Amino acid sequence: MEKITSPSIFIGQEGNGIISFGSGQPDMPPPEEVYKILPEYRAFKYGLIQGQENLREALSEQYHNATADSFIITNGASEALDLSLRALYEPGGKILLPKPYYYSYPFNVKFAHMIPEYYDLVEGKIDYENLEEKIISEKQNTKGYRAIVINSPGNPTGSVQDLDVLQKIEKLTHDNGVYVISDEVYKDLIYGRENYLIKGDHVLTLNSFSKTYAMCGFRIGYVYARQKLLIDKIIGIKTHTSMNTNILGQEMAHEATTVPKEFIENQRKIWEERRDMIYDGLKKLDLDLWKPEGAFYVFPKMKNPNKVVNDLYYKYNTIVYDGAWFGDPKRVRFSYALDISKIEEGLKRLAKYLNNEYKHN
Amino acid sequence: MEKITSPSIFIGQEGNGIISFGSGQPDMPPPEEVYKILPEYRAFKYGLIQGQENLREALSEQYHNATADSFIITNGASEALDLSLRALYEPGGKILLPKPYYYSYPFNVKFAHMIPEYYDLVEGKIDYENLEEKIISEKQNTKGYRAIVINSPGNPTGSVQDLDVLQKIEKLTHDNGVYVISDEVYKDLIYGRENYLIKGDHVLTLNSFSKTYAMCGFRIGYVYARQKLLIDKIIGIKTHTSMNTNILGQEMAHEATTVPKEFIENQRKIWEERRDMIYDGLKKLDLDLWKPEGAFYVFPKMKNPNKVVNDLYYKYNTIVYDGAWFGDPKRVRFSYALDISKIEEGLKRLAKYLNNEYKHN
Repeated sequence: MEKITSPSIFIGQEGNGIISFGSGQPDMPPPEEVYKILPEYRAFKYGLIQGQENLREALSEQYHNATADSFIITNGASEALDLSLRALYEPGGKILLPKPYYYSYPFNVKFAHMIPEYYDLVEGKIDYENLEEKIISEKQNTKGYRAIVINSPGNPTGSVQDLDVLQKIEKLTHDNGVYVISDEVYKDLIYGRENYLIKGDHVLTLNSFSKTYAMCGFRIGYVYARQKLLIDKIIGIKTHTSMNTNILGQEMAHEATTVPKEFIENQRKIWEERRDMIYDGLKKLDLDLWKPEGAFYVFPKMKNPNKVVNDLYYKYNTIVYDGAWFGDPKRVRFSYALDISKIEEGLKRLAKYLNNEYKHN
Repeated sequence: MEKITSPSIFIGQEGNGIISFGSGQPDMPPPEEVYKILPEYRAFKYGLIQGQENLREALSEQYHNATADSFIITNGASEALDLSLRALYEPGGKILLPKPYYYSYPFNVKFAHMIPEYYDLVEGKIDYENLEEKIISEKQNTKGYRAIVINSPGNPTGSVQDLDVLQKIEKLTHDNGVYVISDEVYKDLIYGRENYLIKGDHVLTLNSFSKTYAMCGFRIGYVYARQKLLIDKIIGIKTHTSMNTNILGQEMAHEATTVPKEFIENQRKIWEERRDMIYDGLKKLDLDLWKPEGAFYVFPKMKNPNKVVNDLYYKYNTIVYDGAWFGDPKRVRFSYALDISKIEEGLKRLAKYLNNEYKHN
């Protein structure tokens, strides 16, 4: 049996009675509307590198005072991040990442030839004073951080950062010439309050149709940027590195923007019910975790997470992710992007494991 | 009137009586088969980063002794090149490019943080002795070139490199530890002989569904690599920078692979007829050019190409591309990816321009 050291081994692992708390993708399908245009579709030519006008128009209506010019449609939020970092490149540039982090972040920074540094989240939350000190002292000692990545609601934490903290960061970064890359892909999966959009000329907002509309496989994301120079730079890079994003995927995403808001509201209710169920379930099993306020992850503390991942997979047919993959080697990530009945069954298997062997470790 | 200094101004410029010899995309639609699967399509989840198995299987059957494991499906050949270069990255690495070149190449090398250098094509053809000397002397003086890009059939030259030259390059690069990135996107648009696939463990073959099947807008390309280490590296980068290529685009590409070979044969006949027509037409206008053997470009020498580009656009409603964008400031690129009747009309406009003002410059 191969020891599991990265999530890649789990890709495509479904069926055979496996319960997967692994992958971070919605299990419920996109709104039927996105498929409606398919039968008649016959386009085939290159699209605009920046993205189709109808989709960018529709997006601009979702953001206060935005225009279609400020959006670049990308191959998912992954390419949105890759392009943003490549556009912000400067030799020796340091990018400040949250820790724990979405597992791609450090790779993305390195692939953009910059240096990842980290600010610690405390039980999933930003410690503002600590962050402020970091940013200011870096500015005093060097040319300062090139950019900071904010991810609220966050993966793997499920945390939503407090409003006043986000607003203070907005100002702090502006005053210190630090760009903000705000990864808001979970903005519509938030249970307490509305999402807060981090604003300003120095902000690049990343988003996608993967979580809100369950369109992961179609890879439609975007950057919303306010600086013309940065927008042009991103388009300039994309012109050579991938050209337009798939034209049909964009048309499907455009259809998604026309779906009544109730779709999102209904999805959110389902997510919230699942969140409550898994949170309560893990609590009952005496695990140490916080109640997530967004996204679809819980992140309990566990002894020897990598052993847990291997044991659960090989002995209990259950997939969970090692917190170390996200920069926190003391926790295990459970995605609750699966049906209530499966969550129930998964919790039963976990209970068995905890009773049978984990507690005696 | 804005002076035209890059092809980007022409993007989306069609209709209004414009004749465009500009964009490098087929005007004829993809085979109807690629749309056949659309009405029933309902998938939405992430696909494999490497690409869908059915598509990779189908591709492996097109290459002697290949297996599905050796292919990575990408967002067009653009991403295939971007990923290949990023996978080959080494500090100070030099990449040898043909000159004239496909206009993205130098950008791609720079975006991958390496250094572009050039080997000159002579009337579109590789001067093997010159190339050999370059590669060997670089190897003697430094650690040698990291990779060479070969593009046959070539853009903007329309040239097909001679068989024996390609075979000698295959050996030369192998013996000197230079990787080959072979951009063969025009492999099915070749009028004289079959395409020659450059072989070897040190070769990365790039291709796409954009030219053969007119699927430009869907952005389905691929890398065919023989070294497991390189394949894993490319998948590793793609995992973080864009994830899977659009799942529906891949399914459509898979359908294209099932289309009878006559489709390609019929397309080729149309391209050849157009090639003959534009070549003869330009010859009759006394322009200096070679007869292209592949792709869909002619590349005549002209006085002051940038003036030609501007004059033709602003005064004759006709788009052509400045050779300088491709590294040859003495020539003008005409794409013949347009209907015979439009080629005729375009040639008339060109004749008028040549008679009215160009010859008196």
